[in-house]
Amino acid sequence: MRRDVSSELIEKLDIEKVSELLDIPEHRITGAIQRKTLQYVRGRHDFFRFDKPISGIEAGTCIFLEPFDVVRGFPKIPRALMLHPSVAAHFSTCEKVAVEEKMNGYNVRVALINDELAGITRGGFVCPYTTEKAIELVGREFFSEHPDLVLCGEMVGPDSPYVPKSIYDIESLEFFVFDIRDKLTGKPMPVMKRREISDEYGLRSVRFFGEYEVEKADIEIANIIRGFGTSLNEGVVIKDPEMVLPPVKYTSSMSNCADLRYAFEFYNDYGRDFFFPRVCREAFQSVEWNENEEGQKERCRRFGESILLPMIKTIRKKKEDGRITETVQIRVRNLKTMQEFEDHLRLLGVDAIFDEPENTGDGYIVKIHKKYHSTSDKTESILRGELWS
Amino acid sequence: MRRDVSSELIEKLDIEKVSELLDIPEHRITGAIQRKTLQYVRGRHDFFRFDKPISGIEAGTCIFLEPFDVVRGFPKIPRALMLHPSVAAHFSTCEKVAVEEKMNGYNVRVALINDELAGITRGGFVCPYTTEKAIELVGREFFSEHPDLVLCGEMVGPDSPYVPKSIYDIESLEFFVFDIRDKLTGKPMPVMKRREISDEYGLRSVRFFGEYEVEKADIEIANIIRGFGTSLNEGVVIKDPEMVLPPVKYTSSMSNCADLRYAFEFYNDYGRDFFFPRVCREAFQSVEWNENEEGQKERCRRFGESILLPMIKTIRKKKEDGRITETVQIRVRNLKTMQEFEDHLRLLGVDAIFDEPENTGDGYIVKIHKKYHSTSDKTESILRGELWS
Repeated sequence: MRRDVSSELIEKLDIEKVSELLDIPEHRITGAIQRKTLQYVRGRHDFFRFDKPISGIEAGTCIFLEPFDVVRGFPKIPRALMLHPSVAAHFSTCEKVAVEEKMNGYNVRVALINDELAGITRGGFVCPYTTEKAIELVGREFFSEHPDLVLCGEMVGPDSPYVPKSIYDIESLEFFVFDIRDKLTGKPMPVMKRREISDEYGLRSVRFFGEYEVEKADIEIANIIRGFGTSLNEGVVIKDPEMVLPPVKYTSSMSNCADLRYAFEFYNDYGRDFFFPRVCREAFQSVEWNENEEGQKERCRRFGESILLPMIKTIRKKKEDGRITETVQIRVRNLKTMQEFEDHLRLLGVDAIFDEPENTGDGYIVKIHKKYHSTSDKTESILRGELWS
Repeated sequence: MRRDVSSELIEKLDIEKVSELLDIPEHRITGAIQRKTLQYVRGRHDFFRFDKPISGIEAGTCIFLEPFDVVRGFPKIPRALMLHPSVAAHFSTCEKVAVEEKMNGYNVRVALINDELAGITRGGFVCPYTTEKAIELVGREFFSEHPDLVLCGEMVGPDSPYVPKSIYDIESLEFFVFDIRDKLTGKPMPVMKRREISDEYGLRSVRFFGEYEVEKADIEIANIIRGFGTSLNEGVVIKDPEMVLPPVKYTSSMSNCADLRYAFEFYNDYGRDFFFPRVCREAFQSVEWNENEEGQKERCRRFGESILLPMIKTIRKKKEDGRITETVQIRVRNLKTMQEFEDHLRLLGVDAIFDEPENTGDGYIVKIHKKYHSTSDKTESILRGELWS
């Protein structure tokens, strides 16, 4: 039965063409379809997505079928834990590095697919809500002259169903470009050229802090991060201005702790793998910044509170009314987008309840309650007296 | 090649006899030998040990060969995260529960094997150091009348190569009995009978707090735990006085944080899996004890400091002199025990440096430096600027 489904899917894809274009051996492509690493997704556009990286092709890469088209996944950006040695080692062949803000939203690629705009999330799904927002915020102008490029950027603001944030003084949702890449090869444009082109088309870019000599960059970056103070700006991305070397990211302790607060509110859904890299970031930053005893204690307090307080809140909530949910909202022009987004969340395996849409005159606000079953069930069973074996 | 080794091992063991005595199907035994779940250990006594549980037989169970003998592993004790519902649910068929101290040392079974005392660690290894201590602290008297029983207890004190603790006012190392079980079946003795027999033979038992009615036990236990104050007593074990139902453990936040401090000093060797259950214990205890804001903050501070401060210390240490080690000590009568213990640590995969023995008149103190390679290598590579991908 399963083999039949795979063979059917394999027939849909021009394996030879994909193999040649992406330089993957044919047997790896058919194998990936059989193992569901290369997944078929039905929707407004039918396509295959890479659930994991295969033969150097990034996870989140999409292959559209009619007409055939490819949008490469957004590459994983490695992280520095110690600024000074990391920048020196990684950018040793550059004179300068460009530093831009790493914003806290969700990663989106906007591309022209079959002459329509598509908003693609990091994982390689065409999201109907993101697509509506791309049409509204990005428009077609850029693509009429550059149909083979993809705009990579952060969708940021409170009307985000994935990462809702109110830290940037954004009313609803905005798109900030941080990369322009070739659709098929993923090759990125140099930093300043990309910013100029974005400006030309009236597209907002992420904040540019400056270009710094490699030897001094760590000092400048530490100052930028410290300059964020207690605001929740996530951090920076450090780039080879020519974009030949891959970029490196570095984030603030405030934002790290905000992530922990979020994750431990839904501790059994996120907590386990979330924790370890984040504790390492805190410890290495403290050492690199040569914190004194008082600074260390303040960091420990913030860190401890970021983990335990949200968990305590969740357990108490479960004791009282029994619902562990996260409420987010979307703002749509069209109720059809809401319905498609409901299907989309189901496809992603997210169990969510949609409130009745509120009419705002030029559209609708819809509140969405995402259910965290694993945290909810685990908390309930421990409150009932189940033992930890 | 590997198959040949397995067949040789299979021939050493009377599979039929083991199958009958322990009620495991014969093919599961041979399979376990092939997969090395049932491991052959060479030494003063040659034996097989269960590295993992098989067909209801506990991990750490030993099968000795000449003469044939079995010592059942010490069962895993499940843990309560919420005292009240756990005690009520688990001990619903008892009137009372007996509460004893859970000491912070290492779990040892002492048994008579081929007419010699053997000190067996939790994992099912005969440890030469523990054996010397068993001979000194326990002696043969009990076993001359009860050769088919095994004394289960905690080895506690500063001269412990596994869990060195100076919290109990013990000068060197002491053995505290917490269970007497049947060697072959693992069947435990009722609590008061066990304590009486131990007394008769002059053996120390773990502290007994009392027998409490099941409905009120959680209040009493919370008072015991709070009564530990800031001392590092680990916690309690809650038992069916008849030992028909399995016991349940519950531990203090101070001891939990002490574990975290230890684990995060060697963060890459222990941190990952160590963390999650411990954060859960803290959060549920805070909720069950209905802590106010101040109590919560104090808990968060303690928790955060237990994780980050030891990591920061380790990273700084690595920056300065480059050695991440733990120093423990043993106190032996006989230098042969030290040599055998050196081999034993190698068998366990522990890389350790032994200092020259110091003569104390009636024996020797030997300091041992255990190397934590994973933490050492990870810290070094991050300090060199390696990125976190």
